[in-house]
Amino acid sequence: MHAILVLVTALAAARLPGQTGDLRGRYQPVADRIIAAATADSAAWSRLAELADRFGHRFSGSESLERALDWILAEMTKDGLADVRGEPVMVPRWVRGAESAELIAPARRPLPMLGLGGSIGTPAEGITAEVLVVSSFAELERRAGEARGKIVLFDVPWQGGYGPTVRYRSIGAIAAARAGAVAALLRSVTPYSVRTPHTGMTNYDSTVARIPFAAITVEDAMMLHRMQDRGERVVVRLTMGARSLPDAPSRNVVAEVRGRERPDEVVVLGGHIDSWDVGQGAMDDGGGSVAAWEAVRLLHRLGLRPRRTVRVVLWTNEENGLRGGTAYRDRHEAELGKHVLAIESDGGVFRPEGFGFTGSDSAYAVVRRVGGLLAGIGADSVSRGGGGADIGPIMQRGVPGMGLDTEGERYFWFHHTDADTVDKLDPRDMALCVATMAVMAYVVADLEEPLPR
Amino acid sequence: MHAILVLVTALAAARLPGQTGDLRGRYQPVADRIIAAATADSAAWSRLAELADRFGHRFSGSESLERALDWILAEMTKDGLADVRGEPVMVPRWVRGAESAELIAPARRPLPMLGLGGSIGTPAEGITAEVLVVSSFAELERRAGEARGKIVLFDVPWQGGYGPTVRYRSIGAIAAARAGAVAALLRSVTPYSVRTPHTGMTNYDSTVARIPFAAITVEDAMMLHRMQDRGERVVVRLTMGARSLPDAPSRNVVAEVRGRERPDEVVVLGGHIDSWDVGQGAMDDGGGSVAAWEAVRLLHRLGLRPRRTVRVVLWTNEENGLRGGTAYRDRHEAELGKHVLAIESDGGVFRPEGFGFTGSDSAYAVVRRVGGLLAGIGADSVSRGGGGADIGPIMQRGVPGMGLDTEGERYFWFHHTDADTVDKLDPRDMALCVATMAVMAYVVADLEEPLPR
Repeated sequence: MHAILVLVTALAAARLPGQTGDLRGRYQPVADRIIAAATADSAAWSRLAELADRFGHRFSGSESLERALDWILAEMTKDGLADVRGEPVMVPRWVRGAESAELIAPARRPLPMLGLGGSIGTPAEGITAEVLVVSSFAELERRAGEARGKIVLFDVPWQGGYGPTVRYRSIGAIAAARAGAVAALLRSVTPYSVRTPHTGMTNYDSTVARIPFAAITVEDAMMLHRMQDRGERVVVRLTMGARSLPDAPSRNVVAEVRGRERPDEVVVLGGHIDSWDVGQGAMDDGGGSVAAWEAVRLLHRLGLRPRRTVRVVLWTNEENGLRGGTAYRDRHEAELGKHVLAIESDGGVFRPEGFGFTGSDSAYAVVRRVGGLLAGIGADSVSRGGGGADIGPIMQRGVPGMGLDTEGERYFWFHHTDADTVDKLDPRDMALCVATMAVMAYVVADLEEPLPR
Repeated sequence: MHAILVLVTALAAARLPGQTGDLRGRYQPVADRIIAAATADSAAWSRLAELADRFGHRFSGSESLERALDWILAEMTKDGLADVRGEPVMVPRWVRGAESAELIAPARRPLPMLGLGGSIGTPAEGITAEVLVVSSFAELERRAGEARGKIVLFDVPWQGGYGPTVRYRSIGAIAAARAGAVAALLRSVTPYSVRTPHTGMTNYDSTVARIPFAAITVEDAMMLHRMQDRGERVVVRLTMGARSLPDAPSRNVVAEVRGRERPDEVVVLGGHIDSWDVGQGAMDDGGGSVAAWEAVRLLHRLGLRPRRTVRVVLWTNEENGLRGGTAYRDRHEAELGKHVLAIESDGGVFRPEGFGFTGSDSAYAVVRRVGGLLAGIGADSVSRGGGGADIGPIMQRGVPGMGLDTEGERYFWFHHTDADTVDKLDPRDMALCVATMAVMAYVVADLEEPLPR
């Protein structure tokens, strides 16, 4: 540590105790009460397990999503929450259909796969073509002359995390089509594989033809690459029944604990209730949704009514459209000035470490002190930068936003796969997430002054 | 450590230096030469990758196994090994056929599954029945009255390793049939799952009816258990086209570096070349097979011809019959008195730690000293107890046996699944396994006196 930094840190520490002391003195007892209640049982995890087991995945436009929403609305009403409602949202409806990939040469072998969300399908007989394997967009550009009429496979190793790798899922079909490819394949975006394909959203643009795009497993991408490196001609047949149907009605689920003094000022917290059409969508983001719901239920059950309203929102259609987040913004446009804070959990309800925050310096100073109330459970880190996809649209309107940070080492092992199931989450960790979100939401909603912008 | 043990250990250490010094002086240079050559490149891993990519899995009775054997025999001949041959073995032929499992109630959902090897099939329309989930044989006994006409699911968590858990795969169908069940399901035998079913051998006995038996994933076994715990009626449809066909011809692959002084005395080393009918059988046991082959090829290439013959054997049909191991014993019965040592690698060619040894105390003292030559690569541990399934039949005839020990933490994550692929193995680790097996085989084959029995 540099000497000057030591000095600054010491000064900061010297300045904080009084303020922290005030906040701590006023709120530590209630924070501890919330934490004790949240961690007394496995209620949150059990509710998530029931949701997951009962309805399975909850893809936009599916019957299972709408049935899950009906059940949640009924349960929230039973919980005694205020103003429980489903706010209408039209969502895109992409249907996977029957799909498969098969290695045809140099050997015949099935290739486990998942079409990417939004992809077009193939003709019924599939597309059978030679494969060109590349490791990057740069390599595709260098070898663009070889791509025409082929299936381009992006065999991009997981490097530097999700961001750099998921780019290939986002725009791979565009780049491949530009080089003249007839279809594209993607090495699943994950640091670790047990021969499990990962789906996710992909995009087209208006400048080139749309071509079918699917993910295969890490193992098979590496195998096709080895075959190409040996000079073998690699041929794959890709068959996808994917198609887009007209938009379908869905809902954002909203419920509240009404503020006792300033009910029109709101702290929003939530997750997205839709999932991909695989697994149970338990980690992404059933867990975040149920944790936020449980946090609000806990405040209600403990009779904790803060000055301002605490509102849980379970956004629909985060995965393939973000229609829930944008509809919330549009419907509540007039109230956004009085949205004090928006909190999202969409990184898996693993052991909580704190939050990432986006807002003004003065607001940051306040939420850091609130975060300090969570030191006892090790969730008191509040770092700069953070939010969530669903609260993105209202953050763009100036609402301070934060995202729950968790110890998500294995998040991307299961992300967007058939293995995103409730057993990946620990009841105690999830209870701590409930406590962490409940304490932050309650205290920020109860402060005398609204969080500065 | 107990005082008496400290004393014994100290005495042993005091007695060893002279002997170790002799052996070390004579063999450390050649051991180092072998290690340097084995680790100079990724030859072993590349050969395994070629085998795995070219032929895929190699199940007993399959065309891919026999084509792989043809290729190996041709390559061994090209390698210049002596007396390359395929020794005929008749192997059982179990065919999986089309198979599926579906949850019918309380919700409809596909259940990824793999029939267990040797299982009978179901009628074409499948077996649809209520499920009774139990956690143990003891629970099944307590609840035997509830099992009649149902499908029994053994949801047995991975505890205490493979042994206690795999018992349920071995004899679960017998126990379930005894309680009157019409079929049985197994939670896959693994400490870790990404929704991946694991197959493996199962058994029937002559006292009760044979019922179909399949593995589902850890995730789904836990889900069905939760549903039962909630009081829900769980119904599954199991459809399996499994059947046993007449035995088919296969081969043990054998090749040698002939001994320069006592060619009739033999050190055998190998692995099993057959695999389950999933994945690539790269870890289990393509890796062990190719490592043993490469070890012998390395001795040949380096011009290292020990006093005795070093023989690589790639046994067939370890997985569902052990016919290769028993056929080797029967064919070589008369020579077994001159089999000095048998070494098997069947735990995955991860980073080698040494060997487990089964033989006399005097033989153990010798192989421990030979193991000391591998201290430089950390593979010098020689513990008591060890061997391998394929060398089991000749060990029962008195041949000292040893199994390669590796750092196999993740072995059972991939074991008997579609994810047993070559990428799970590291080229450097595999090269070290080649070195470890080559040094042990060479030195034991070259010692003046044969290893004592």
